[in-house]
Amino acid sequence: MTAEIPPQPSPRLPIGGTSLQGRIADAAIELFYSQGATATSVRDITSACGLTPGALYNHFSSKEQLLYVLIRDIHVLADQGLAAAIAGAEPVASAQLSAAVRFMVWRAAGSRKQSRVANREYARLPRDSRDEVKAIRRRMRGRFAEILLAGAQTGEFALPGSQDPLAAALTATAIATLCADISEWTQEHYPLPLPDLQDRYVEMALRLAGARR
Amino acid sequence: MTAEIPPQPSPRLPIGGTSLQGRIADAAIELFYSQGATATSVRDITSACGLTPGALYNHFSSKEQLLYVLIRDIHVLADQGLAAAIAGAEPVASAQLSAAVRFMVWRAAGSRKQSRVANREYARLPRDSRDEVKAIRRRMRGRFAEILLAGAQTGEFALPGSQDPLAAALTATAIATLCADISEWTQEHYPLPLPDLQDRYVEMALRLAGARR
Repeated sequence: MTAEIPPQPSPRLPIGGTSLQGRIADAAIELFYSQGATATSVRDITSACGLTPGALYNHFSSKEQLLYVLIRDIHVLADQGLAAAIAGAEPVASAQLSAAVRFMVWRAAGSRKQSRVANREYARLPRDSRDEVKAIRRRMRGRFAEILLAGAQTGEFALPGSQDPLAAALTATAIATLCADISEWTQEHYPLPLPDLQDRYVEMALRLAGARR
Repeated sequence: MTAEIPPQPSPRLPIGGTSLQGRIADAAIELFYSQGATATSVRDITSACGLTPGALYNHFSSKEQLLYVLIRDIHVLADQGLAAAIAGAEPVASAQLSAAVRFMVWRAAGSRKQSRVANREYARLPRDSRDEVKAIRRRMRGRFAEILLAGAQTGEFALPGSQDPLAAALTATAIATLCADISEWTQEHYPLPLPDLQDRYVEMALRLAGARR
């Protein structure tokens, strides 16, 4: 197997933003990644991109709003990419699952800083923003669950324990968790090229699904 | 398959603590779980157990020190329990892996609040404390990796991608991540009795390991 998705630069944030907003976003991701959002000040972000502290407020109403926009957009891009990867695969459960996992590994490993910030910080957003992000995460798990349940129904997959929506949800959560966790690794521990990493994760996902060989 | 570990009350914290320290620990876990450690004050903790704020300082030097002691002890108990579960299993890789996973699921689901606090908050401890906890987490993953590599060497397991320490480490991380993630679920989503949950996770772990059937 080879990677279907070639390495690409990290998606630009925020969605539809100007190049100056993009510079602010890049600096913010770098700082949120290395020291966490709580410990990062507006001044840290603006000085990292050579702006005066006040300049941020021309684009974002606060550090919290910037954090929310970044986390939301990272999730929106991931969900859109996941949907596209699945839609582009053969209409066979194992092909769809493979394409979905290959995309998720590419996102988590290739845009590791964006992914880690999004995964670590979303739970601390204010309730309304958090609910919005949780809905996107639920939709992404739902895409996996749908493939798994379809595969169970055609007999292509033998899910762990039962062949019902509960087993599909459980397995979907397991696969999504494994992929998300990649952003938590240190590259030094697992020095694998992306296509190899994708192959191993596809293999693990197919095993979890109980794919017929 | 049935559960080898009967449901038990959550382990008492801190290790070797007095009953008053235990009450402080219980109140702290409850608050750290529901609102996070950052948002919890010493006053919140002491008033939850009917003490004056100053009373906490007879037992812990600060909220941060209490948090560290709790996180450390949760990890120490988990690691000791994991080692005991493995030592008590037949000296066959699949039996050891099953016992290890059964224990981890019991911990994460049965002491869900303790587990979630430990998993969520450890990364924000001061460097020295964090390094101590990370070493315990590494040791726990190492116990899984050792079983997986031994199973690969006897041909009992066919690990994903290769049969070397790297594949064992990758699979160990995957299994440990799946088990830890249980503490993040809401019970409403997966209303499974503990033995059923254990069976499904053992099944997933054996599949990831590529256990011969």
